[in-house]
Amino acid sequence: MAPFDLIVRNADIATVGDRYRGDIGIREGRIVAIAQALPGEAAEVIDAAGRLVTPGGVDGHCHFDQPTSDGSRFADDFFTGTRSAACGGTTTVIPFACQQKGGSLVDAVEDYHRRANGKAVIDYAFHLIVADARPEVLRDELPALVEQGYTSLKVYMTYDDLKLDDRQMIETLAAARRLGAMTMVHAENSDCIAWLTEHLLAAGLTAPRYHASSRPMAVEREATHRAISLAELVDTPILLVHVSGQEAIEQIHWARGRGLPIHAETCPQYMLLSAEDLGIDDSDPMHGARCICSPPPRDKANQKFIWSALSSGLFTIVSSDHAPFSMAGPHGKGVAGEQASFDRIPNGVPGVETRLPLLMSEGVLGGRFDVHRFVELSATSPARLYGLYPRKGTIAVGSDADLVVWDIRPEGEAFTLRHDMLHSACDYTPYEGLSLRAWPALTLSRGRAVWRDGQFQAAPGSGQFLPCARPLAPRGGEPFARWV
Amino acid sequence: MAPFDLIVRNADIATVGDRYRGDIGIREGRIVAIAQALPGEAAEVIDAAGRLVTPGGVDGHCHFDQPTSDGSRFADDFFTGTRSAACGGTTTVIPFACQQKGGSLVDAVEDYHRRANGKAVIDYAFHLIVADARPEVLRDELPALVEQGYTSLKVYMTYDDLKLDDRQMIETLAAARRLGAMTMVHAENSDCIAWLTEHLLAAGLTAPRYHASSRPMAVEREATHRAISLAELVDTPILLVHVSGQEAIEQIHWARGRGLPIHAETCPQYMLLSAEDLGIDDSDPMHGARCICSPPPRDKANQKFIWSALSSGLFTIVSSDHAPFSMAGPHGKGVAGEQASFDRIPNGVPGVETRLPLLMSEGVLGGRFDVHRFVELSATSPARLYGLYPRKGTIAVGSDADLVVWDIRPEGEAFTLRHDMLHSACDYTPYEGLSLRAWPALTLSRGRAVWRDGQFQAAPGSGQFLPCARPLAPRGGEPFARWV
Amino acid sequence: MAPFDLIVRNADIATVGDRYRGDIGIREGRIVAIAQALPGEAAEVIDAAGRLVTPGGVDGHCHFDQPTSDGSRFADDFFTGTRSAACGGTTTVIPFACQQKGGSLVDAVEDYHRRANGKAVIDYAFHLIVADARPEVLRDELPALVEQGYTSLKVYMTYDDLKLDDRQMIETLAAARRLGAMTMVHAENSDCIAWLTEHLLAAGLTAPRYHASSRPMAVEREATHRAISLAELVDTPILLVHVSGQEAIEQIHWARGRGLPIHAETCPQYMLLSAEDLGIDDSDPMHGARCICSPPPRDKANQKFIWSALSSGLFTIVSSDHAPFSMAGPHGKGVAGEQASFDRIPNGVPGVETRLPLLMSEGVLGGRFDVHRFVELSATSPARLYGLYPRKGTIAVGSDADLVVWDIRPEGEAFTLRHDMLHSACDYTPYEGLSLRAWPALTLSRGRAVWRDGQFQAAPGSGQFLPCARPLAPRGGEPFARWV
Amino acid sequence: MAPFDLIVRNADIATVGDRYRGDIGIREGRIVAIAQALPGEAAEVIDAAGRLVTPGGVDGHCHFDQPTSDGSRFADDFFTGTRSAACGGTTTVIPFACQQKGGSLVDAVEDYHRRANGKAVIDYAFHLIVADARPEVLRDELPALVEQGYTSLKVYMTYDDLKLDDRQMIETLAAARRLGAMTMVHAENSDCIAWLTEHLLAAGLTAPRYHASSRPMAVEREATHRAISLAELVDTPILLVHVSGQEAIEQIHWARGRGLPIHAETCPQYMLLSAEDLGIDDSDPMHGARCICSPPPRDKANQKFIWSALSSGLFTIVSSDHAPFSMAGPHGKGVAGEQASFDRIPNGVPGVETRLPLLMSEGVLGGRFDVHRFVELSATSPARLYGLYPRKGTIAVGSDADLVVWDIRPEGEAFTLRHDMLHSACDYTPYEGLSLRAWPALTLSRGRAVWRDGQFQAAPGSGQFLPCARPLAPRGGEPFARWV
Repeated sequence: MAPFDLIVRNADIATVGDRYRGDIGIREGRIVAIAQALPGEAAEVIDAAGRLVTPGGVDGHCHFDQPTSDGSRFADDFFTGTRSAACGGTTTVIPFACQQKGGSLVDAVEDYHRRANGKAVIDYAFHLIVADARPEVLRDELPALVEQGYTSLKVYMTYDDLKLDDRQMIETLAAARRLGAMTMVHAENSDCIAWLTEHLLAAGLTAPRYHASSRPMAVEREATHRAISLAELVDTPILLVHVSGQEAIEQIHWARGRGLPIHAETCPQYMLLSAEDLGIDDSDPMHGARCICSPPPRDKANQKFIWSALSSGLFTIVSSDHAPFSMAGPHGKGVAGEQASFDRIPNGVPGVETRLPLLMSEGVLGGRFDVHRFVELSATSPARLYGLYPRKGTIAVGSDADLVVWDIRPEGEAFTLRHDMLHSACDYTPYEGLSLRAWPALTLSRGRAVWRDGQFQAAPGSGQFLPCARPLAPRGGEPFARWV
Repeated sequence: MAPFDLIVRNADIATVGDRYRGDIGIREGRIVAIAQALPGEAAEVIDAAGRLVTPGGVDGHCHFDQPTSDGSRFADDFFTGTRSAACGGTTTVIPFACQQKGGSLVDAVEDYHRRANGKAVIDYAFHLIVADARPEVLRDELPALVEQGYTSLKVYMTYDDLKLDDRQMIETLAAARRLGAMTMVHAENSDCIAWLTEHLLAAGLTAPRYHASSRPMAVEREATHRAISLAELVDTPILLVHVSGQEAIEQIHWARGRGLPIHAETCPQYMLLSAEDLGIDDSDPMHGARCICSPPPRDKANQKFIWSALSSGLFTIVSSDHAPFSMAGPHGKGVAGEQASFDRIPNGVPGVETRLPLLMSEGVLGGRFDVHRFVELSATSPARLYGLYPRKGTIAVGSDADLVVWDIRPEGEAFTLRHDMLHSACDYTPYEGLSLRAWPALTLSRGRAVWRDGQFQAAPGSGQFLPCARPLAPRGGEPFARWV
Repeated sequence: MAPFDLIVRNADIATVGDRYRGDIGIREGRIVAIAQALPGEAAEVIDAAGRLVTPGGVDGHCHFDQPTSDGSRFADDFFTGTRSAACGGTTTVIPFACQQKGGSLVDAVEDYHRRANGKAVIDYAFHLIVADARPEVLRDELPALVEQGYTSLKVYMTYDDLKLDDRQMIETLAAARRLGAMTMVHAENSDCIAWLTEHLLAAGLTAPRYHASSRPMAVEREATHRAISLAELVDTPILLVHVSGQEAIEQIHWARGRGLPIHAETCPQYMLLSAEDLGIDDSDPMHGARCICSPPPRDKANQKFIWSALSSGLFTIVSSDHAPFSMAGPHGKGVAGEQASFDRIPNGVPGVETRLPLLMSEGVLGGRFDVHRFVELSATSPARLYGLYPRKGTIAVGSDADLVVWDIRPEGEAFTLRHDMLHSACDYTPYEGLSLRAWPALTLSRGRAVWRDGQFQAAPGSGQFLPCARPLAPRGGEPFARWV
Repeated sequence: MAPFDLIVRNADIATVGDRYRGDIGIREGRIVAIAQALPGEAAEVIDAAGRLVTPGGVDGHCHFDQPTSDGSRFADDFFTGTRSAACGGTTTVIPFACQQKGGSLVDAVEDYHRRANGKAVIDYAFHLIVADARPEVLRDELPALVEQGYTSLKVYMTYDDLKLDDRQMIETLAAARRLGAMTMVHAENSDCIAWLTEHLLAAGLTAPRYHASSRPMAVEREATHRAISLAELVDTPILLVHVSGQEAIEQIHWARGRGLPIHAETCPQYMLLSAEDLGIDDSDPMHGARCICSPPPRDKANQKFIWSALSSGLFTIVSSDHAPFSMAGPHGKGVAGEQASFDRIPNGVPGVETRLPLLMSEGVLGGRFDVHRFVELSATSPARLYGLYPRKGTIAVGSDADLVVWDIRPEGEAFTLRHDMLHSACDYTPYEGLSLRAWPALTLSRGRAVWRDGQFQAAPGSGQFLPCARPLAPRGGEPFARWV
């Protein structure tokens, strides 16, 4: 057997399907052999010492260095963002290349490559945000982009600078069907939010907690039902992003029961934060401001529906929706202090680094699901859904050597999460003070140790762009065929 | 006891709640006494001879003399339309006063009064179609109109000249809540229909049956869910008009189970016609053209869901949605013959005269529900829902003497429905050839016989305008209160 | 017009379908005329002074003088029980004639006639409890009994001395179908209750609140689903008695949505009591003991589902399930005091007198439903369901003059319910201290004032036995026909 | 690297989670290495030539050599049964050790070991059928049996010689919870079936198709709901065996949505047979007799619900429910010919050999689910569910070398299934004449080729008994704790 560059010995390997002891032989960044005992001809040997080893995380929903229309600024660029990911065990990120209304998708892609280039420390792909679905974009730009490896689209049903109307969504879904692309949907009813917001502000209800009042569960539920219906019309799969609670879950459950291919994502903030964190009694507007994201964390009763849907198989993936807005700064989340009106606080929380540890600690060690489901939700399913499997998302012969060796603490020896342990440029974590029992001891990205023994150790630009395969078979024929 | 103008003796009286034998004493157009045997001091006595007597029908959804934007013409004006109603046992109609985009609701009301004035032979009220929900209309015009007795609004989610977007619907619902008005919703997703229609036409699929393909059940279901959600947002009741089948029924069933005050209407065309009538094999495009209405009749399996929902209490009312477009004429439904494209055939079927006989014959005599439910669906509930009860919709002391004395045939002695029995100016009935066992022998409108022994006998203009009471209590306070 | 025995003038009459002002003319115990102004030739005239007048209540579920197997004693015989009913506005009761295992239905009926005879002060019918469904009972006894006016059956899925197994239930349902009888079902899974009870007692968990633990919602839900399924198998309607909360409601909602004729009853104890009344903290075992009934009051969240299902139409009737066990006495609910084990406390609460006032006060005046729904739930529907309509349950020409004239207090002038206001022989009311705004000022039973101005004034034995009509058409043919 | 006993080279390996090219190194019956290219030091090398290689099938539901109470005889003993399994790609079977009413579980286990010993050609475990759940069995016998590797129980809700009542089911579930065993439930309501059967026979409806009338979907649905409820009561997982159609699926879907750990199995007969195969027109009673099994195949509309639930993840496993009764013989399925009454025809169809090829051909190649789901349903999930994973059910380092190398035909080159291709002792297959595109070219059991190039080649007795691990963690504490 040819010599290996690296052998990880004595690993307690867990994949979506399997769990076993073995040695992992790595050559040129790929896994080339797994065996009970590999002969030791390797440049380097790491002894995992029987510790749990899982596939490096794939974060299918995060925002780095994305321009905004209101002056706010994402705190992380591709260096700090991917560094933060790596230190939390994530080895692949899929941020967005965001089209401007009136602009070009191709330009957006080029712009984002410039932003990522020379900065990213782990591998990355791009989703395309289709903010302007005019015919020439779908007809002239999209096919080549899909061909080049941009095979997932995101559409918004809210936010003035991003949202599509139903017709534009239909056209985008029809294009996705034709091209074999996957479509992600941000489902909230824009008009409902605008109406509620105007009336809340007019009534002087401006504290952070009214952010939740401005976009209640019914608003997400309606848009979820509508998105499912449009996907059914066109007969193509979608993924509903950041599902926040029971009523949206029920719609997805209903759609699945009817055999519709509806995927769904949730995020740690919907498992661990709640409306109370937005300041149920207005006593801490700063904490409320920190926790503002959209959809908002729901009341605590919804958390158990989220966990139950994670355990039952309803959710396809867990992403971070890392949207790092610092509290400080002229457009920061905290700038206006107690006087801030909820509608002027940037929407989003950081989370790319904490996603895996939170899921492992609260999910697996908390007894809510097993380690296979952890791997599925955090790595294998996002890789599959977005055309990166089998290169990413698993531990198998032929796959990239993206691995996490875990440091797992016994019950009773939990540690406390503090913002200063983290590597994002964002100035807070909404989970400050949470008890955790798991953190990566080692993160390998294509065989390179990028996080080891508490040290980040990768060079800017060492991450590679990943063109994605089509997640779906392109489908010809009339998209309306099922209705005739 | 003061003398009566008219006594109807020996009636087998059926109301929504009761059934008993009695004499009905009428004075000045109102019922003033009901007794086992009224002393006979009456100007006129009609012996009902033990026949079933029900309240005159209240048709909550019909179109007379309404301008259209495409050159088509409703065949009935207020004379022929109300004549047709009276001959079928209906004594109250509530057609629409339809605002033009950019126009005034007050102007619409005045226009429709001119159209009805001197023509109507039975009593009538008006719903207001809000086709342009700009702030000044809702703020400056609507309150006074509600005060004057125009207390129900209709909004459309499709048709370019009528439809409101979600924000406009919310504003209209909020106005309805404030003023105590009832809102009717035509629920079909406009963008879906437009997209399907364009693609069907482009593919050369133009026969009448593709009308059904252009607006499948999922399109109605989505809009139904959305309308329910907007009503939930604003916390005010709505009525979903012309519900056509299972999937919309399921949404309403779900909403009711959650305690939401969602009312629903269906029409005889959804009980008795089906997709097959649109010409499943293209063999009779003329019959297909006759049966085109929106939503379209669904496949036959849906009929049993409609009947089941009539029997179970899910539907609040049955209306005709009388929309009489003749086959003949330059813009008639049949003009283009076999070459016609479905999108150019006016949408709608006549039915104001056949509604009660069909419901009695197929519903009550067909064993699907009892006579109380018949009265509820066809008279009492629409009167209540639109603020005409107790003047209309029942047989009770103090109510208008609007009565139907029925001629009911024994099983085996059914007659065949023919268009030439009817009194609409429309040139066909979609139910040609149907077997029936019931027809009004006598219709009384405020104690006047308007249909008797096969003769229509009322003077144009003898019908009166009915200002409607508020169906709901006006509600102050913030309409968003439930979300805070 | 022949003279009346009694005229109730100036009544604000409310029936299930109507509401109007009028005079009610009564002769020989029946209503013979209703008019705006009846000529005053009457032996007696009562001026209702514009007060609300509703049909006398029909209580379709109450227990009087019923033998028990464990030494406990129902506190009310037919005199005190019907007296209590009359003072609370109820004019018809339908208690049970209960077969003994191994005994005869005919004997049971005769026994109960002896118990009622000479005692009842209002009219009464009997349901038959089929506790032993052996073939000869169903074949030889039941047809004649139905013919004689015992047209409703009750079956139990729990209680060792009463319960039927599935096969016996099927046979009973098949007999009911054949004969046109209505079947009431007490739905709780007997084996689950027995198993939980044994384990709770073994664990020393004996306080009253563990009564609720011994028969949780899932136990009622399972039996509800099973009862629905057996009724579906045999294709005949049933009524589920004393439905207590959300999960059973969902089963009924599901069945209705599928078009199955499933009726449901609830009782005031499920609207107004909750698990907390069973002594959530064991602090008042005596109050807990008072409130023990089966199914048990559920947690407070279920109350809103009960109210919502009352308002939405899901429930067909509201009965009292009056099961009056006194606290005092050798087998009383309170005898063992704090040492009592929940399984030895008789199951049931009194309520025949408070049913109508509670429903009027909390339901109608509390804004949860209108007066028509009140009449439907408390009078018209039970009369219809059990074959007593139109003689009972409404205010209409030809019906018995069973009326309640209400004393309704303005908001802010509520009075407090106290046990000493009541006329049952039971020594407590579970609603002690509740605020009420409504009580009957006058109860008429067949034109006789039995309760007037705070005085009960009827002679024992003045109530009549009411043979019931068949509520359903008897159906021949194979009962399994739908499955072939 | 130590030499291998066998290398399978150039395999297109598919597991539940992964798919990749590789060489599989086998030593002492186990997989010890997987690599892109293993050095060739092996006693034997098999070149898979790029063909699909999946884990050997695990059939979690099959009957071999099981005594019956009615004189009928299972056609397969442990030799012919396991031979048939091996030739169809199945390498592990879990038949039943069936307790007799009044008998001992230990005796049953010993009896079945005698039957299997020296005969089985592939590895096997045993489920325990608990037909008599008396306390001493659950208390004295079961704990030791679980300890010894009999860790799954089966209970029946129908069949007189097997069925448990609700209390016995609860006790069995409580024992399973305590011991960490999995419980399988045959869910059909016994009383309903008995009642329908008696009435059908009395009406002369005896043809095979009335077997379906005797146990309609509602009968399975009811028992499914009840089984779920009992499992919820005791708070322990169950598996519902041989789910046959929509209504049972809906119950499971509902339970999952509530977070209950309800597993479900279906079988090829519910995907591919339908009520029509039972002889919708009585024209071929012999074919009807062949296809009789319980639950019966449902009408064709149910097939799509089964496929949809396979694809959506609702079903946990697919088993054969191999119950081989020959047509010939004194108690054979065909003996009575056209005169046979459905209730006298043994219930069951053979299928242990066709399960994998049918699933691969109709499922994977038919486009209904992917190869990962195939592996999950047919191998990994049953191994996990019954405590055989990771030894069985996957292709991973450390697992037994149980492999199938597939012969997959291109579209258009399907072959026809004939009974004479099969290796069961049963004299027919219900799938005679079906077109297939897949069959195992090679089956390896612990590295031994048992089926290769159309030849069966294993010695009787070469299969080993597999003691199963506990599938669940044993749980102490009161089983009723959730209700207190």
